Amino acid sequence: MKMHDVQAALCTSDLGNEMMRLIARLFPICRSITGKGFRDTLTILQELIPLQVHEVPTGTLVFDWTVPKEWNIRDAYIKNSSGERVIDFQKCNLHVVGYSLPVRKRVSLDELKAHLFTLPEYPDWIPYRTAYYKEDWGFCLSHNHFLALTDETYDVCIDASLETGHLSYGEYYLPGRTENEILISCHACHPSLCNDNLSGIALSAFLAKFLRTHSLRYSYRFLFIPGTIGSITWLALNEKAAARVTHGLVVAGVGDPGKMTYKKSRRGNAEIDRAVAHVLQHSGAPYEVIDFFPYGYDERQYCSPGFDLAVGCLMRTPHGRYPEYHTSADNLNLVRPECLENSFGIYLTVLRVLEGNFKFSATHPKCEPQLGKRGLYAAIGGSTDSAKKQLAMLWVLNLCDGQNRLLDIAERANIHFDVIKDLADLLVDHNLLKAGP
Amino acid sequence: MKMHDVQAALCTSDLGNEMMRLIARLFPICRSITGKGFRDTLTILQELIPLQVHEVPTGTLVFDWTVPKEWNIRDAYIKNSSGERVIDFQKCNLHVVGYSLPVRKRVSLDELKAHLFTLPEYPDWIPYRTAYYKEDWGFCLSHNHFLALTDETYDVCIDASLETGHLSYGEYYLPGRTENEILISCHACHPSLCNDNLSGIALSAFLAKFLRTHSLRYSYRFLFIPGTIGSITWLALNEKAAARVTHGLVVAGVGDPGKMTYKKSRRGNAEIDRAVAHVLQHSGAPYEVIDFFPYGYDERQYCSPGFDLAVGCLMRTPHGRYPEYHTSADNLNLVRPECLENSFGIYLTVLRVLEGNFKFSATHPKCEPQLGKRGLYAAIGGSTDSAKKQLAMLWVLNLCDGQNRLLDIAERANIHFDVIKDLADLLVDHNLLKAGP
Amino acid sequence: MKMHDVQAALCTSDLGNEMMRLIARLFPICRSITGKGFRDTLTILQELIPLQVHEVPTGTLVFDWTVPKEWNIRDAYIKNSSGERVIDFQKCNLHVVGYSLPVRKRVSLDELKAHLFTLPEYPDWIPYRTAYYKEDWGFCLSHNHFLALTDETYDVCIDASLETGHLSYGEYYLPGRTENEILISCHACHPSLCNDNLSGIALSAFLAKFLRTHSLRYSYRFLFIPGTIGSITWLALNEKAAARVTHGLVVAGVGDPGKMTYKKSRRGNAEIDRAVAHVLQHSGAPYEVIDFFPYGYDERQYCSPGFDLAVGCLMRTPHGRYPEYHTSADNLNLVRPECLENSFGIYLTVLRVLEGNFKFSATHPKCEPQLGKRGLYAAIGGSTDSAKKQLAMLWVLNLCDGQNRLLDIAERANIHFDVIKDLADLLVDHNLLKAGP
Repeated sequence: MKMHDVQAALCTSDLGNEMMRLIARLFPICRSITGKGFRDTLTILQELIPLQVHEVPTGTLVFDWTVPKEWNIRDAYIKNSSGERVIDFQKCNLHVVGYSLPVRKRVSLDELKAHLFTLPEYPDWIPYRTAYYKEDWGFCLSHNHFLALTDETYDVCIDASLETGHLSYGEYYLPGRTENEILISCHACHPSLCNDNLSGIALSAFLAKFLRTHSLRYSYRFLFIPGTIGSITWLALNEKAAARVTHGLVVAGVGDPGKMTYKKSRRGNAEIDRAVAHVLQHSGAPYEVIDFFPYGYDERQYCSPGFDLAVGCLMRTPHGRYPEYHTSADNLNLVRPECLENSFGIYLTVLRVLEGNFKFSATHPKCEPQLGKRGLYAAIGGSTDSAKKQLAMLWVLNLCDGQNRLLDIAERANIHFDVIKDLADLLVDHNLLKAGP
Repeated sequence: MKMHDVQAALCTSDLGNEMMRLIARLFPICRSITGKGFRDTLTILQELIPLQVHEVPTGTLVFDWTVPKEWNIRDAYIKNSSGERVIDFQKCNLHVVGYSLPVRKRVSLDELKAHLFTLPEYPDWIPYRTAYYKEDWGFCLSHNHFLALTDETYDVCIDASLETGHLSYGEYYLPGRTENEILISCHACHPSLCNDNLSGIALSAFLAKFLRTHSLRYSYRFLFIPGTIGSITWLALNEKAAARVTHGLVVAGVGDPGKMTYKKSRRGNAEIDRAVAHVLQHSGAPYEVIDFFPYGYDERQYCSPGFDLAVGCLMRTPHGRYPEYHTSADNLNLVRPECLENSFGIYLTVLRVLEGNFKFSATHPKCEPQLGKRGLYAAIGGSTDSAKKQLAMLWVLNLCDGQNRLLDIAERANIHFDVIKDLADLLVDHNLLKAGP
Repeated sequence: MKMHDVQAALCTSDLGNEMMRLIARLFPICRSITGKGFRDTLTILQELIPLQVHEVPTGTLVFDWTVPKEWNIRDAYIKNSSGERVIDFQKCNLHVVGYSLPVRKRVSLDELKAHLFTLPEYPDWIPYRTAYYKEDWGFCLSHNHFLALTDETYDVCIDASLETGHLSYGEYYLPGRTENEILISCHACHPSLCNDNLSGIALSAFLAKFLRTHSLRYSYRFLFIPGTIGSITWLALNEKAAARVTHGLVVAGVGDPGKMTYKKSRRGNAEIDRAVAHVLQHSGAPYEVIDFFPYGYDERQYCSPGFDLAVGCLMRTPHGRYPEYHTSADNLNLVRPECLENSFGIYLTVLRVLEGNFKFSATHPKCEPQLGKRGLYAAIGGSTDSAKKQLAMLWVLNLCDGQNRLLDIAERANIHFDVIKDLADLLVDHNLLKAGP
């Protein structure tokens, strides 16, 4: 079964809802860049794909960085003088600033305020905050909640530990016909936030599950890592594998209803950049392609000058450009099954381009071959778009000169890669094309 | 006499009308890709230029194709039960589908209808149809004519033959100072259609006639061929000559009142592409330059990947973009003498660019030479555009560094090639430029 | 003290007025391409900078040209029959056509008119005219003045000499750490005209004065020359120095209130072209960048094909595009201190780009270095634009791969060169960058 026939089948499937169900199941877990929440997440993903879990000890040197202590949290709250939990980690794990030190003390409201974070411009939302590399503690809450706090003495408790342990990450390597790799990387270090990053986790996992059942040209490597420190750790420990990465995508923010956005690799004109731009151009939906800049997700590390991998970032609305980003409003309502499924389809189409982007040579390069005597007009005729297909076939024959790859042809002819690829296959069947230069 | 002085003289000549008279004379002939009509056309052209007529036997293998049987038609009609010719080939040769098999039978109206072709959207026009590579027969007629047919028995007669014979084409080789060739190719296989293709035949023939009387840098090859199979045949039998083609133009649809349209060669940035674009840009009239696509006229074959010749197609309104295309409305009223003459002028200017596009070197490359002491301000002064000409002269002196050709200079200075060329000649006369790098 | 700290200091200085005072002092002098007026100008400039004065004898062959005779004028007038000076050189030196032959004769009004030049479209302005290379004489006057002349006999006197002598020019060579030179060239051959060319003289002289007190990467050569013949003479006598010119600017018309205009070098993409375009783009003011054309100031000679130096021309309103150009209205009112100062700032910023445009390499090219542990967020934080600066720092780290120069980085990041340069210096201090590839 060809990959895009499968995709057609998927369209009538329940894929979007399946991804939503995974997201809903992962949502309550309190993830951070290390610790139990991250491990629990990987365990659930192992139900879908045979993910290998790596544990890297605290203190391991990874380039200019050091693997941090492991953070775990069991409970946290702020109780008022009546002993009521006015802020309760059990209700929403965003209430605690990530990597907060353990705390247990009585404080006045004024003292407490120095450790409280709110979003006055969205007074009902709880912000998401972390303090990875400075030792501190804090609570996040909605601004309205904050305004309602009365001037009294509070019991503050963060029952957490920050100790020597491990950084965990998940890796799934799917071997293909060649050792050249396509890297699919997502960060999995955020607590109850849906679009950033559960949508990316779900899409990556289902993509891996889907690809497992296919014969693949490229080998694929799926990484489920903590942001920044995770990609740095993986790169530091896997330089040989990194050198085999031919194309790559960082997956993030793929469930919101915004248009697709592709941030190019540092190279700017890599095959992955052209493949994504081509697929988006022919997607029939609004989209945006933006240039690389050295901020954002883990593409920052993959595209550092010492690696300069051909890795872009394919999202819907970019981080920081939607108000719900890094707040409690990035919840199960922001992410929609049909958007997840649409993103999945775009990803799959991009991979199909990469998988099929070969060079062919015309067996009759001098003048057009006579298509009529081979029934090739008939083969494509009948439908109303047969003139379009005939022109596409002439493009393939004209440009298969051993220099152009199929994506070059699709770009120059301004015709969807899938059409070009199908015709190339048909022409190979009729001995009018052969593989290679 | 310089080529563009001659052109100026032509403007006051009767060239447009001369071309119209040739078109009117060729119009009644029933041409097809083989047969007597094609030969008769070549014979008439031989009155203008010493055309060599080639006859290629049926069955000759030409790359992936085979030279077809020769088709000849003497008469054809459909008679009603009263014995009146309701459709008569003698009145209009478009009535018979090209390459129709000989037929002589009685048919009911219903039977007949399966072999009739009309254009409902233009109910007074007769379409032009062929059936080269499937053995069948048919008639074309106006839709109003078709609607008036009564339900009776008809006598159908196509007195034609489809037999082993020859494919004919005309070739005129005009040797120049070098063996590098400029190819001028037109198809001559259409019956009573004026813009497509009699306008191209007339322009090519008069261009050949004009160039014969000049000393030429390039050798010129004029081809009058049946479309597709003709260029394939010529290429198959003349691979060595094809390798000498440095620039080329396919001539078609050059008599209608639409704007000039240039379809670039497959290479896209060949000298011919730049020369035509430059001439059109400075023509003072609307024009369009479009990218190559592998459909259209014989540029499809010249630009097949095994040849990839620098051959574009210079037309007025492109095929298929005017309603009269391939109908009886493409008649002597569609083509206008002033449009033919204008097209001729554009072609001649393009050839002048190619002929004169040499490299020169300044003899005083360091700082400007002193023009005043050589009277070179005077030489160009007086007229109101003397400041423009002075700037043009400075451009020529500045850019004649042995790297740039005159067209490079004309493009960068955004000044008509003719002006640049005249000034280069003047500066050579004053020993301020010398030929070559 | 860094060059741009100095510039900041300048902003509160009196530089614009200082330049205006120099212009006012030079204004009354009757300069031409040779003679006492030119020498007097150089003598005044020697008060500011240790200018070397060169004297090239009449008749010296300089490429295709010959150094002309020296022209000096003491007095000139036209007296009416009452003995009154109706035109008086002492009142305005524009009244005499430059390089006029000595004359002393009585003429009728009609005879006189053949030697009078006016500007009917600006009836109160006196035009500026010269007759360098044809031996003639003439007077310029306002059109209203001309219309008031009565029909009588006039005494004409031009007390001038055109004799074997010298062409003078000023040169100031400021050695830097390398022998590669930046050429700053201005013409100084116009009489009482302010924007063209006193503004250029003033800016060049103060630029030289400013740079003297700094340690410089490049050596600088400042030329104060007569237009055309001066640059030709310098190039002819200094071919070795010309070969060391790495970047250059022709300075002219830098005092009017129009927007900055940069005319690119003949190369079009030289480092100077990119540096000026970058600085203007980030100047916050309207500007225009135009392509090279072989007309204008001395860039015509520097960019002749035998030299093809990377020399552009950085002006405000280009010559010929403001009505006051080459008239008595190009006076002390047209040039404004704030415009001179603004032009000076642009020039200095351009030189700062050239001085600082080095290659650096990241010491930690694999993944981002950890900025937090080095206090580098703190180093740039605090101000409201700290996020911008952080992104700029990431750009520097990402693109300092030993291939890019800082200007490449500034262009790609679309961030002012000064910001990039400061951050590169900061990162060198923290051992995160090192010089060189």
